Amino acid sequence: MSQAWEGYLVDHDEELIDGLVDFLRIPSVSALPEHEADVGRAAEWVAARLRRIGVPEVALLPTERNPVVYGHWHVADDQPTAVIYGHYDVQPPDPIDLWDSPPFAPEVRDGRLYARGASDDKGNFFASLAAVEALVRTQGAPPINLTFFVEGEEEIGSPSLAPFVRAERERFACDFVISADGGMHGPDAPSLTVASKGLAACQVDLRTNRSDLHSGMFGAAAPNAVQALVQLVATFHTPDGRVAIDGFYDQVRELSPAAREEIAAVPFDDEAFRAELGTASLWGEPGYTTLERRWARPTLDLNGVWGGFMGEGTKTVTPAEAHAKITCRLVPDQEPEAIIDLIERHVARHCPPGAQATVRRFPGSARPFAVRPDHPALGTALEVLRELYGTEPLVIRTGGTVPVAALFQEELGADMIFFAWGMPDNQIHAPNESMRLDDLRQAMRGYGAYLTALAR
Amino acid sequence: MSQAWEGYLVDHDEELIDGLVDFLRIPSVSALPEHEADVGRAAEWVAARLRRIGVPEVALLPTERNPVVYGHWHVADDQPTAVIYGHYDVQPPDPIDLWDSPPFAPEVRDGRLYARGASDDKGNFFASLAAVEALVRTQGAPPINLTFFVEGEEEIGSPSLAPFVRAERERFACDFVISADGGMHGPDAPSLTVASKGLAACQVDLRTNRSDLHSGMFGAAAPNAVQALVQLVATFHTPDGRVAIDGFYDQVRELSPAAREEIAAVPFDDEAFRAELGTASLWGEPGYTTLERRWARPTLDLNGVWGGFMGEGTKTVTPAEAHAKITCRLVPDQEPEAIIDLIERHVARHCPPGAQATVRRFPGSARPFAVRPDHPALGTALEVLRELYGTEPLVIRTGGTVPVAALFQEELGADMIFFAWGMPDNQIHAPNESMRLDDLRQAMRGYGAYLTALAR
Repeated sequence: MSQAWEGYLVDHDEELIDGLVDFLRIPSVSALPEHEADVGRAAEWVAARLRRIGVPEVALLPTERNPVVYGHWHVADDQPTAVIYGHYDVQPPDPIDLWDSPPFAPEVRDGRLYARGASDDKGNFFASLAAVEALVRTQGAPPINLTFFVEGEEEIGSPSLAPFVRAERERFACDFVISADGGMHGPDAPSLTVASKGLAACQVDLRTNRSDLHSGMFGAAAPNAVQALVQLVATFHTPDGRVAIDGFYDQVRELSPAAREEIAAVPFDDEAFRAELGTASLWGEPGYTTLERRWARPTLDLNGVWGGFMGEGTKTVTPAEAHAKITCRLVPDQEPEAIIDLIERHVARHCPPGAQATVRRFPGSARPFAVRPDHPALGTALEVLRELYGTEPLVIRTGGTVPVAALFQEELGADMIFFAWGMPDNQIHAPNESMRLDDLRQAMRGYGAYLTALAR
Repeated sequence: MSQAWEGYLVDHDEELIDGLVDFLRIPSVSALPEHEADVGRAAEWVAARLRRIGVPEVALLPTERNPVVYGHWHVADDQPTAVIYGHYDVQPPDPIDLWDSPPFAPEVRDGRLYARGASDDKGNFFASLAAVEALVRTQGAPPINLTFFVEGEEEIGSPSLAPFVRAERERFACDFVISADGGMHGPDAPSLTVASKGLAACQVDLRTNRSDLHSGMFGAAAPNAVQALVQLVATFHTPDGRVAIDGFYDQVRELSPAAREEIAAVPFDDEAFRAELGTASLWGEPGYTTLERRWARPTLDLNGVWGGFMGEGTKTVTPAEAHAKITCRLVPDQEPEAIIDLIERHVARHCPPGAQATVRRFPGSARPFAVRPDHPALGTALEVLRELYGTEPLVIRTGGTVPVAALFQEELGADMIFFAWGMPDNQIHAPNESMRLDDLRQAMRGYGAYLTALAR
């Protein structure tokens, strides 16, 4: 029993896709200064589109860098309020030679729309706009109160976001956030992402002697910084892959049996994964499946190490300093700063004799995020996907970090529901980014159905 | 009861020092192509000096690179034959701004002769020439059979030396070698160096995955190359500083009680040494004194380590490869190639799961060297120094590597007696290299007395 807004989407399919194509023509690359004006044009484009749909309040809100496009439609006091989050900026198109068609001249081939941003995030965000348009044209207004939050710095790490959200808490007050930025497990495997990991970053700097020394004269008597660093850093893990920092797991919320069941329900082939990575064997914390580790267990990752002589051949030096780069991926309820405190304490305790080590904290930390499993908007999203695909949606997570999710949770007290159709083969951040038109249409229908189902 | 040759040295002191100054004016820097002609001139200078002294056979023997100056004086079948070893090339003078007088314009200040090569090795080698001259002028011939071996590649690692000596074994057949290149414990602490360490060099290359990976997506499941390397390399030592490579110490000739006494007789202040290095505490194999470790115990030195991200800030990468540079300092009877074999076996056995590590061997290996303690030419040298200084000479060793010592031992079957007056404060390889004129005169007298005492 199809609804009028669904008919609108079918009838206006070509016109809607043309609209997205128009949006995709704007090279709004936030990382490149020469595209500053284009970034501004993309923000204006979103604002104009919101106005055209009929959103009553539309504004470009300035931040330290690129404006946030704000739109608000209050329909009824007794309806819930959702923030729809997306971003209008895109990744740089390099390496440009590898594109089969120009990144900012959108082209449809074999049922896919090719362009930078086709999936991340112009295509996915546009789907929400198309659905709202269909609802407004057929019903006069959206079914619930809506606030749009469309930023222009996502691809450069959203440097302005935290202070902006903190200052604009009132304006963006809501019951929950729907993110139109994100992915699905696969075109035939509808899914909802319910958690992302947090991040804590630091560097260990270790020094032994005043300066590098001749290894023949001093190597047998002076502490070697590379030696000391290697010994120290080796204590960060047990040989079988568990993090050995005292207290590291203390705040970790253990996976519930239900969560483990959800993860186990996701088809995953360890052997195929291993072969794809080109590694002899997988690795990690014992006692958990590969997907559990990737999605729901914290890690301490050694991102780099260096010290002493790194050139060709031999240099007989006893190095005086050495360094290691570390990031931790965190899960609820680990706190980034507290984790670095633990690393600092561990380093102080395990630093070999003769060496002095300090821990330098890096910015960019983020809290882990997880939507509470009984969140009504999550249950509704699952129902909508179940109906749309005629199959049971998968409940998935990501090992990546989505700072905005934790930020909104913290500042607005609102959980984020990831509701987006990025597919693993969409080549986001890579040449020949694309989106299946069928996925785009499912996204539009999905948003229409979701916003409808969210109404009380 | 002074001898005639001693009188000659006193009477011709100024003339002899002028001769050395002349030699020092030649900028025979073997490392710099622009000084190629100067290197040749220095070789000619040595040959001319030998001829002037009266050495009957003198020749420049070509090598792959710079000629070896050869001189031979056969005096009697019943006298021993000594090779006198030295080198006519010098280190580059850089950084030239730090010299108080030009490096190739020799200058005497406060009883020291300043010039590049004043100590290493033109000054020290010239002392042997001066002594032979004095002996020849006063006695008609040297007391024993002499062969000069003066190379021009010492400061660039003597690349031509091994094949040259192998091909010229007959010509350089001798009972022992006297090295005029080397040092003493101090101006008031006459000493003889009786051992140097060998060298074995390699690199560990470790790989885990096909390429670097996103640590959020893969860090919990893919083996991390930096992690694996650090774990592997940490197994090379016990926490208390002993080398933990299986079999590493198997061939080590244990220090005899006499050798330990010799070393204990050398004044050495651990605390002053520690302060000079600027380290919190000294380090090394337990069970040995600092000098024993530096002079007579083998080491495995981590010269460098690198892998993954080494830039500013954070990059959330799971590195696919990592590397470590290793040199070992060896003592009798460790063999460089056999030691690398042991490292290779250890790496194969201890490489963490999911990682593949290979050991790459580097050239430049050298056997350890030690003169046998009862070598008659060593005993004679000790007697000469005892008489010259009126004090008991110290028996010392070096943690450095002197490939030529092991090479002559191997190819000529001849032990090397280090008989040279380089002092710790002579600034060799550094700006303002110099030699005390008093040390130079002691060296000349020492050579005269030594060659005399060696005669049967």
